[in-house]
Amino acid sequence: MTTPHPTADTPAYAPGHAASQTKHHEWRTAQNSAAHLLPHLDRLAQQTPHLKLLDVGAGSGTISASLAAHLLPHGGSVLATDISDAILSRAASHATSQNLPNITFQRASVYALPFPDGEFHVVHAHQVLCHLPDPAAAIREMLRVCAPGGVVALRESDMRMWCVWPEREALLKFHGLMVDTLVANGGQDKGGRRLVSWVLDAGAGSLGRGDVEAGFGTWCYSEEGDRRAWGEAMVERLRTGQMREKGIELGLTTEEGIEEMIKAWEGWIETDDATLGIMNGEVIVKKP
Amino acid sequence: MTTPHPTADTPAYAPGHAASQTKHHEWRTAQNSAAHLLPHLDRLAQQTPHLKLLDVGAGSGTISASLAAHLLPHGGSVLATDISDAILSRAASHATSQNLPNITFQRASVYALPFPDGEFHVVHAHQVLCHLPDPAAAIREMLRVCAPGGVVALRESDMRMWCVWPEREALLKFHGLMVDTLVANGGQDKGGRRLVSWVLDAGAGSLGRGDVEAGFGTWCYSEEGDRRAWGEAMVERLRTGQMREKGIELGLTTEEGIEEMIKAWEGWIETDDATLGIMNGEVIVKKP
Repeated sequence: MTTPHPTADTPAYAPGHAASQTKHHEWRTAQNSAAHLLPHLDRLAQQTPHLKLLDVGAGSGTISASLAAHLLPHGGSVLATDISDAILSRAASHATSQNLPNITFQRASVYALPFPDGEFHVVHAHQVLCHLPDPAAAIREMLRVCAPGGVVALRESDMRMWCVWPEREALLKFHGLMVDTLVANGGQDKGGRRLVSWVLDAGAGSLGRGDVEAGFGTWCYSEEGDRRAWGEAMVERLRTGQMREKGIELGLTTEEGIEEMIKAWEGWIETDDATLGIMNGEVIVKKP
Repeated sequence: MTTPHPTADTPAYAPGHAASQTKHHEWRTAQNSAAHLLPHLDRLAQQTPHLKLLDVGAGSGTISASLAAHLLPHGGSVLATDISDAILSRAASHATSQNLPNITFQRASVYALPFPDGEFHVVHAHQVLCHLPDPAAAIREMLRVCAPGGVVALRESDMRMWCVWPEREALLKFHGLMVDTLVANGGQDKGGRRLVSWVLDAGAGSLGRGDVEAGFGTWCYSEEGDRRAWGEAMVERLRTGQMREKGIELGLTTEEGIEEMIKAWEGWIETDDATLGIMNGEVIVKKP
């Protein structure tokens, strides 16, 4: 039942990049997933002729592309990094399909960003720290490459802050399985509430509480189209994703358990009064 | 260990209106607690020369006053109701202190609103349903007094969706006590996730899912001033409020347990990386 944990030296994206994992990620945009950053981005873009934004752990890159589109009229640009070449090439295809000339891609570990100190005006990471065994080390590196006067913007799910209606038993078990596999992979189940704490640790005295703005944002899946987008992604993930293999391997669930979860999500999609709420911690760090 | 539950026939605000209960409520405004309503309110106020808004279960009335201030330039007005004359007179004093000529107050039960069908363009309730044994009956009554084309706006905590950092044991126990006393008083601990379901029940076929917009909003207490506002209100509530009496009466806690919770909140206020997140369900019902 022990499982190798990724460490600061051997970074990995434990959930993997199967289509089942990334499908729902592609629903994400700067508007629905980085709204806390946008007012700061606008403020900095107005002050900075060629603003440079680093998007760390960009994954399928839909938020990165959407940030690039936001910066295009201001002359700003985005560099999107990930540890996986495969997902970066998918992200690049997406950017091409959006006709975005101001975004580039580069493989990099968040623990060792291959950039000089203060290189970027904005450094952004979305749902990245929750997969890492040492989130404060990653934030320290993001702070290093951020220019004084710039901002580091973080958003992380608080995986325990998840509520579903109706509360079918198989859906509650699904939530338990999701949290347990994340933790078994060395991830963080309470990222949302811990963001401020990680940031102050990472700052190691160079940041005061006044340099950090904290809040929470949510995702809600309740209208039919949103239920379908979420539910179908979860069904695919249960059919083919890492959650199934890992969950069975760790003895957290069984083939039958997985089949029940699939049926429960399929039923949930068709349920008119179904709702799913997820809460994310959001932090803006103003680098002194 | 049994306790009389309020019913649809004998409404009561179980937490009571001691200063310790209402102090934190006064932090609330339309901006931080009814943001989901404001775009609809602006749209309706532009169409409607003398818009009438009913605020149900207004309590200390700071949200009501803030809605009245918002409507003042448009010629709209607010009628704020509550089941307690005492709290309404406090709400009226607050409105007077704000120089608001367009708000009036009237005692009323949410289960039997003393108004004709379709009397109001907007009907609003904030953290009211979670105290009721029959939320759908209350929503049915709010729908009745709402004019066709108007909106019913609801916002309810999902009391289980509460996360605190650092996770001191006494703070987790406090959360458990808060939820348990609410439920023991006949309240609803999962209001946020159930709002859509209650609304469709209340509509009894007259509402389709397309008439209901659903989302979630949050409160975050993390910056020093917000930590102090929340923490001091919780300490006061533990010292003198209904939670202490009820918790001890029901055997949910002890005098010593309460004292530990007080110490834990006092320490939390002084903790630089402390954070509290709370998630609220938000619904806009467009009355057909």
